[in-house]
Amino acid sequence: MVSVSLGDNKYGKAENRIVRIVRDTPRHEIIDLNVTSQLRGAKLLDSYLTGDNALVVATDTQKNTAFSFAKEFGVPSPEEYLLALGEHFVSSFDWIEGGLWQAEQYEWERILVGGQPHDHSFVRKGQGTRLATVAKEDGQTYVTGGVKDLVVLKSTGSEFAGFPRDKYTTLVETNDRIMATSVTGRWRFLPDAVEAGIDYNGLYAEVTEVILAAFATVHSLALQQTLWEMGKAAIEARPEIAEVRFQMPNKHHFLYDLSPFGVDNPGEVFYAADRPYGLIEGTIIRDGVVEAPGAWKDVPSFI
Amino acid sequence: MVSVSLGDNKYGKAENRIVRIVRDTPRHEIIDLNVTSQLRGAKLLDSYLTGDNALVVATDTQKNTAFSFAKEFGVPSPEEYLLALGEHFVSSFDWIEGGLWQAEQYEWERILVGGQPHDHSFVRKGQGTRLATVAKEDGQTYVTGGVKDLVVLKSTGSEFAGFPRDKYTTLVETNDRIMATSVTGRWRFLPDAVEAGIDYNGLYAEVTEVILAAFATVHSLALQQTLWEMGKAAIEARPEIAEVRFQMPNKHHFLYDLSPFGVDNPGEVFYAADRPYGLIEGTIIRDGVVEAPGAWKDVPSFI
Amino acid sequence: MVSVSLGDNKYGKAENRIVRIVRDTPRHEIIDLNVTSQLRGAKLLDSYLTGDNALVVATDTQKNTAFSFAKEFGVPSPEEYLLALGEHFVSSFDWIEGGLWQAEQYEWERILVGGQPHDHSFVRKGQGTRLATVAKEDGQTYVTGGVKDLVVLKSTGSEFAGFPRDKYTTLVETNDRIMATSVTGRWRFLPDAVEAGIDYNGLYAEVTEVILAAFATVHSLALQQTLWEMGKAAIEARPEIAEVRFQMPNKHHFLYDLSPFGVDNPGEVFYAADRPYGLIEGTIIRDGVVEAPGAWKDVPSFI
Amino acid sequence: MVSVSLGDNKYGKAENRIVRIVRDTPRHEIIDLNVTSQLRGAKLLDSYLTGDNALVVATDTQKNTAFSFAKEFGVPSPEEYLLALGEHFVSSFDWIEGGLWQAEQYEWERILVGGQPHDHSFVRKGQGTRLATVAKEDGQTYVTGGVKDLVVLKSTGSEFAGFPRDKYTTLVETNDRIMATSVTGRWRFLPDAVEAGIDYNGLYAEVTEVILAAFATVHSLALQQTLWEMGKAAIEARPEIAEVRFQMPNKHHFLYDLSPFGVDNPGEVFYAADRPYGLIEGTIIRDGVVEAPGAWKDVPSFI
Repeated sequence: MVSVSLGDNKYGKAENRIVRIVRDTPRHEIIDLNVTSQLRGAKLLDSYLTGDNALVVATDTQKNTAFSFAKEFGVPSPEEYLLALGEHFVSSFDWIEGGLWQAEQYEWERILVGGQPHDHSFVRKGQGTRLATVAKEDGQTYVTGGVKDLVVLKSTGSEFAGFPRDKYTTLVETNDRIMATSVTGRWRFLPDAVEAGIDYNGLYAEVTEVILAAFATVHSLALQQTLWEMGKAAIEARPEIAEVRFQMPNKHHFLYDLSPFGVDNPGEVFYAADRPYGLIEGTIIRDGVVEAPGAWKDVPSFI
Repeated sequence: MVSVSLGDNKYGKAENRIVRIVRDTPRHEIIDLNVTSQLRGAKLLDSYLTGDNALVVATDTQKNTAFSFAKEFGVPSPEEYLLALGEHFVSSFDWIEGGLWQAEQYEWERILVGGQPHDHSFVRKGQGTRLATVAKEDGQTYVTGGVKDLVVLKSTGSEFAGFPRDKYTTLVETNDRIMATSVTGRWRFLPDAVEAGIDYNGLYAEVTEVILAAFATVHSLALQQTLWEMGKAAIEARPEIAEVRFQMPNKHHFLYDLSPFGVDNPGEVFYAADRPYGLIEGTIIRDGVVEAPGAWKDVPSFI
Repeated sequence: MVSVSLGDNKYGKAENRIVRIVRDTPRHEIIDLNVTSQLRGAKLLDSYLTGDNALVVATDTQKNTAFSFAKEFGVPSPEEYLLALGEHFVSSFDWIEGGLWQAEQYEWERILVGGQPHDHSFVRKGQGTRLATVAKEDGQTYVTGGVKDLVVLKSTGSEFAGFPRDKYTTLVETNDRIMATSVTGRWRFLPDAVEAGIDYNGLYAEVTEVILAAFATVHSLALQQTLWEMGKAAIEARPEIAEVRFQMPNKHHFLYDLSPFGVDNPGEVFYAADRPYGLIEGTIIRDGVVEAPGAWKDVPSFI
Repeated sequence: MVSVSLGDNKYGKAENRIVRIVRDTPRHEIIDLNVTSQLRGAKLLDSYLTGDNALVVATDTQKNTAFSFAKEFGVPSPEEYLLALGEHFVSSFDWIEGGLWQAEQYEWERILVGGQPHDHSFVRKGQGTRLATVAKEDGQTYVTGGVKDLVVLKSTGSEFAGFPRDKYTTLVETNDRIMATSVTGRWRFLPDAVEAGIDYNGLYAEVTEVILAAFATVHSLALQQTLWEMGKAAIEARPEIAEVRFQMPNKHHFLYDLSPFGVDNPGEVFYAADRPYGLIEGTIIRDGVVEAPGAWKDVPSFI
């Protein structure tokens, strides 16, 4: 007779596409979010075992709440909005012990008309997607910010050499290559800073700026080194950040061999490959901070 | 006994991801293309009927040529590069009567370091993808430019009313809604202008600017009307353009009903829907120009 | 003073995801469709020019009609359903002169329980997506069936040799390679056969079977030849078919060079490449049939 | 002065598309894999800190090894292939302490010709993708199997009622709805069973069969309950399985309101929605087994 138990679980409503227009003045603002809300609690066990839904806050109810909070609480930043949303669920239903609330934010720019930014017409920026999460787990609240799909490339200033050679090694060393990646990064905020309040929007702008600058200026001997310097720059820039996690594909650009056609190719024509790709993942942690595995266990990143 | 014949056909190599770095000075330039080359000719019949490849310019050869031309001819603009590529094939192989050459171009911006644009580090812009095609058909050469994935939204200044009502009509009239679309547009150049030479890059920048401005400023009674005004603005801006074709999904944003929760929602919280979506397609033609169905028959647009 | 006119256009509602359950008996049937409806007519001009919507059958109305017809008319086959839908629009609104109605159909299989097919539980088949279109244009009605995403591969029985060599040719001839493609095919039905009535579901099953068998059995000297034989087989199998159009990417599988590791690789380990890929497109027409460019001008295929 | 350290990390080559043809007899076999290899070790620290690559087994070397092992070791099952690959890296390089090796497998069927399965021509099955992982962490080896994109639907036999109602609850209770999901599941093998050897291919076939049957036969009061019963069935079927983790979106099918058109709709016409969707995630564990967080920390699943 086989006997089984329920382990880790959560449930909710994913990818609520919430668009909030701030129209208090003729100069509108737009906040464009993709929000996921998920709950958990030991008392939800019976919903799995017998389909007893007496304690199941419906995923449809989570959706309604997420939309309504975009008006009731507003969206000063995705992090603050998610904090309010998460607090609502754990305080309203005493059997809900925790959960995970996530947002993607798509940025928009004002359309220029005669050089002037328009009041209520926008074009999607398309450069990177902002990320935010709030996790409540074992009585703790964890907050992260982040970015994904930030695609960068440097056409020189990157080497890869000095690696070990075995039977399966055919790669030629290079002291000048294209380096390109699509940055996915998440930064965890220190609990004390969350408590004190953070200018999340200003921080996002600053962190994306400093990681781009680090990518640009580091003379790279390996993508690992660049990743490290980018994380270090973010932590140095903002005291609110405890740690940064990056996932960076090495988007290979191979020099195209034009010599069969009698054409010289000194680093000018490349083939941008799709698959396979390198995949470098790493965490940079401020010394002295308390580790927080609970912040990461459910986050859809590499770790 | 069934007897069959070969009709329309073409063959080639699709999606060559060609990245061209211009590194004549320390301030590099990057041109990032996705190029497709396809050929046709009546004498290729035997390759279909019997697998006789004596006249089949291999798709691999087309690929090699496309890469090599990025160096030999360079890429002053995607249109000029494709013109050179197409001309090469029809002039080098007398049995190749025509073909279609297409490019997508992804734009990059320089990364700012301390406020200064970096010499060789770039971040992908992500706002719209530039399109270009050259078609050779029946002795004619057709050139188009275009853009896709240019996502725009206006938070007011859009109505939809006055439409007919039948048994299946439940839509409520509105005099204030969000209007959003993802613009795919292609503009065909006048043959005389192609012959005389065109500043394709300058034109692309200007056309995308004027269609964005038209989207922003037209008080819209229907997406059809906005589409028309955008095409008209492009043709008015540039004498080189014979016609413009647009495909515009109506990306619906539905006001979320917060009234069950006692929350007022005067145009502030919307649900951005995925499917189904409206789909509006139209062509705006400069009066007096000769129509060119050959320019469009193989182009992966709506028509 | 620039003067412009409206050219080709159409408008409607795209990607209505309609699922029809037939539950007349405990043994349910499922028909799973993605339906697009678009209308056109010269009298719709004012909707573009001035935003006058008096004749604009709303895209929302088209959606409602498409869903209601899934019950009122039913879905004996996607082709018959689209024919009924199209006829409704042109007969109900005298200013609607034509349009394009398209469907994708996703097939499902019954889940086996103890070896028996279940009455109301299904698993999505996932092998190819069925296509259908009805176009009304200039008083004619055109009907096509088709399939996409039918991925096939043969591990031998494919050659490519005898092609011309120029300066840019580096490809080595091969007399044994993997040939793989993802078939997109559309077949146009003879108007007389449409008039007389067709067993569209039976025909779809038979045509996909014979094109698969042709792919399998033709010893291929070029993908062009295989394409031709597949189209010929379809036309030979069914007298209702006037012509077949195929778009077939050549999904390259490159033999991986294991010789640097001292490992022999006689056609056993391949790298399946993404981009670039060959792209072969062709039409096979039954001799003697009237050509029908109106059937194809708006269809999202290669031509 | 900010001081930072390196936390969790790994690096390697992702999405190696390896196709292995077994051609020992005229009746070929095809094994179609997407393989990712990643390594880690404390001694790799310098590659991050200073770009010293002396211990960095290049991602290109990992790729070469993965391809060569498809021939040298073969692919009796993805699990056994990954076990051999992982063992190679940790035993060949003493500074490599662990890593993660993952595979997706795409299944193919023989094309039928005259009712007979063809020897070397195949059509991709398209129903679910097989998953496998091997993780080496802290001296332990963890093996999982799994499946994703297995899309199922039942047209009756599903209810959702009895859930709590608060201010934000508008959902109506239902005792007959469509239930549909796309199953992602992973099962962890008991270390002793891995040690003893497992018929991984037979197990995959049996587990997918029993979870489909459980989905079909459980009268569902909630997707949570169905998930639980599916996991329980898998563990009951195979003693080698320690635990099962599922991620199941609730792919909503909403009854379309046809009453405005005077049309009755007793569970026959549905709108299949895209976003938002419910998202239910849960773990079913065999009682008495040792938990293995190391098996899951890097796996791209929900937990």
